[in-house]
Amino acid sequence: MENKINRINGIIENMTVDAEELKVHIGKTVRIHGSIYKIRKMSDFAFVLLRTKRTVVQCVYAKEFSNFELDELAEESCVIVTAEVIQEERAKVGYELRMIEVDILSEPSEVSPIVMNQKKVDTSLENLLDYRPVTLRNEKERAIFKLQEGIAAGFRQFLMSNGFTEIHSPKIVAEGAEGGANIFKLDYFGKEAYLAQSPQFYKQMMVGVFERVFEISSVFRAEKHDTSRHLNEYTGVDFEMGYISDFTEIMEMETAMLKNTMKYLEEKYALELALLKLKLPEIEEIPSVKFIDAKQMVSEAYNREIRDYEDFEPEEEKLLCELIQKKTGSEFVFVTHYPSKKRPFYAMENPENIEETLSFDLLFRGLEITTGGQRIHNYEMQLEKMRKRGMKQEHFEGYLMAHKYGLPPHGGLGLGLERFTAKLLGFENVRNATLFPRDINRLVP
Amino acid sequence: MENKINRINGIIENMTVDAEELKVHIGKTVRIHGSIYKIRKMSDFAFVLLRTKRTVVQCVYAKEFSNFELDELAEESCVIVTAEVIQEERAKVGYELRMIEVDILSEPSEVSPIVMNQKKVDTSLENLLDYRPVTLRNEKERAIFKLQEGIAAGFRQFLMSNGFTEIHSPKIVAEGAEGGANIFKLDYFGKEAYLAQSPQFYKQMMVGVFERVFEISSVFRAEKHDTSRHLNEYTGVDFEMGYISDFTEIMEMETAMLKNTMKYLEEKYALELALLKLKLPEIEEIPSVKFIDAKQMVSEAYNREIRDYEDFEPEEEKLLCELIQKKTGSEFVFVTHYPSKKRPFYAMENPENIEETLSFDLLFRGLEITTGGQRIHNYEMQLEKMRKRGMKQEHFEGYLMAHKYGLPPHGGLGLGLERFTAKLLGFENVRNATLFPRDINRLVP
Repeated sequence: MENKINRINGIIENMTVDAEELKVHIGKTVRIHGSIYKIRKMSDFAFVLLRTKRTVVQCVYAKEFSNFELDELAEESCVIVTAEVIQEERAKVGYELRMIEVDILSEPSEVSPIVMNQKKVDTSLENLLDYRPVTLRNEKERAIFKLQEGIAAGFRQFLMSNGFTEIHSPKIVAEGAEGGANIFKLDYFGKEAYLAQSPQFYKQMMVGVFERVFEISSVFRAEKHDTSRHLNEYTGVDFEMGYISDFTEIMEMETAMLKNTMKYLEEKYALELALLKLKLPEIEEIPSVKFIDAKQMVSEAYNREIRDYEDFEPEEEKLLCELIQKKTGSEFVFVTHYPSKKRPFYAMENPENIEETLSFDLLFRGLEITTGGQRIHNYEMQLEKMRKRGMKQEHFEGYLMAHKYGLPPHGGLGLGLERFTAKLLGFENVRNATLFPRDINRLVP
Repeated sequence: MENKINRINGIIENMTVDAEELKVHIGKTVRIHGSIYKIRKMSDFAFVLLRTKRTVVQCVYAKEFSNFELDELAEESCVIVTAEVIQEERAKVGYELRMIEVDILSEPSEVSPIVMNQKKVDTSLENLLDYRPVTLRNEKERAIFKLQEGIAAGFRQFLMSNGFTEIHSPKIVAEGAEGGANIFKLDYFGKEAYLAQSPQFYKQMMVGVFERVFEISSVFRAEKHDTSRHLNEYTGVDFEMGYISDFTEIMEMETAMLKNTMKYLEEKYALELALLKLKLPEIEEIPSVKFIDAKQMVSEAYNREIRDYEDFEPEEEKLLCELIQKKTGSEFVFVTHYPSKKRPFYAMENPENIEETLSFDLLFRGLEITTGGQRIHNYEMQLEKMRKRGMKQEHFEGYLMAHKYGLPPHGGLGLGLERFTAKLLGFENVRNATLFPRDINRLVP
């Protein structure tokens, strides 16, 4: 019986070398695997570009040293190349990879109708998204999402080193946190349930447990607007912190998080930054303006009438960013003290003027990327505000339990990972920075 | 106009000290904040336990040095304590924290009906979960989820350092990946959509892009069974790797990931391990048994008739783990080569016996915590298997695009974070290791 038991010892044997390590193998013969990204035929030799985990590696094919026919290779075949790494000063990387043999592991069944192995995928956004599994194979397209990994990792590293605990809250919920009509319903074993618009209730409850918490996970908005900045599902970066003495501490924390993340990207994602020719914004300090002052500044500077005293028009957000950049050099701006009417029921009002909240948005390059603020922590105050808004206390029992049995003064924020990535990369449309976007017209792939 | 612009510089001013740093302040007066966890009155003084971010700190109240009345303090009030840190050899931590003053930041409105500041919360599972926002404040309850943070962080650290890219795939999908009836439906702007049972399709598509990918995120199963091991929403740890030459490489990778994570916990979560009195399992190597052999081994050892040749009964999983532990000392066991009939349409069959798949489960202390295996990467082979199963190719266009235009041999796995945490902590019920569980009877809090 014992001889039927095998052993798995967790030893990972690398039969091939990593693209990033080729340099140390100069003068040797190596095996390297990847997908054939592009074959570029020259007069008496060919360049064969191999797409590896993170970089595209250039190999050289020539009859004099390659023991196979070039036409055995097809783009998007997955192969193991046996190659000699030859010192070559003329090559950018300092060596040349001479293909000796090739093992073909798999071959595509068809050639993609979308050309994706040029510098950029030259097609409509529609096509780019319809053919995502293929278009993401483009070197620059995939670099966007490698960088997005880095943004989230930078945030996480900062938050964990500042005493925030990462949590996993449920996405199927009995009540939406943000109110309004943009909530997805689902049938939950005969009960009506919803998809979480944010982890708001849960992170507030968890402030009573861990003091500082964060979550990076999917949030859902049944947004019917088909705009360049809305998604129906996106990745929310949410944090919440207790024991604040002022809501500006949340803004300080976010500013520090952004600074830290820019550094993290420069250190760990230099490959992608170089490929995308991306210069990260320098963040020294972020200007902050009160909502009503911001409205007036834009009105004066651009000679626009203020039509809505309770919210920004998208155009105003753009103009404000333009104005602030001119005046301060910053591409970020905090707008604070939004009107109470436009903020959710858990927002803390300014005790000096209850018409406005101790809240903020962060705008970046013309777009709101964060909403945050101080929350109500007192049970009676929260009940009172809910009563005023005609909300039913009994629908929020679990949430209010946190307040009832004691919560510290606290606040937090939510940042849209895709929006931030898009703006960082200079995209007009947030879909360009969304792996598989969901919108009113798109449910696949 | 300029004087309306404030500056946020990202400097985080700590007005209070961290509990973990108290030792360096011996001989000084410090301010420390937290929630009053417990007041323990003695004859002429009192111990006041302060719950901070990660630890519970003991303060001493006595009339001789405390400039306030003890009855100003209530359990679950949030406070800033001004205290003198006095060297005290008799104290476990080497110092005593003498309360001088206290600022009360917030007070609870009511006393919790559930006592949560004892060593353990002594109540039913039902109550424990109904009062989650309060019961999680118990020192040991919250340590479970701090440790769960560490498990996920350990996995992530391992995967990122092994060239896996973290992705964010959509949870609202047009087709379920795992088949069967346990899928939640929702109305997506008039179209029928589903909640993802796993990121399976997306991670396979992304193997064509990044070669190695992972995701740690919510997965949804409309499971009607109300058992100790099923949840309707849980945190899936999913990875997928390309260029495998054998499916055992996936098992090696998981074994290495588990080893690494145990080390990570020992280094970074020693506080919680000590509090929970938890000794982590030692993983040297993990035994692996073929499914059919495992069935026979259990049948022989326990004199049980084999009733189902296609799947395990839960009791058999328990007995197998017991048997393997007796024979090898390991609390983990891989079971391989599950029957094709019981595995999804994307599972790669054994070319030597198409009745079985190149797949595995990982059992730990009697429970399946991982399902994985090699996937079909060839387009025609995948179409053929779908045809045999009566599946409609046109429903899976986006997914099949990856195969059609070229995919390397690959495989991966999914691990349930809550199940793993539960078994690691020795819980019978997975809900004990789930922050806010969702099951057929539970949608709140």
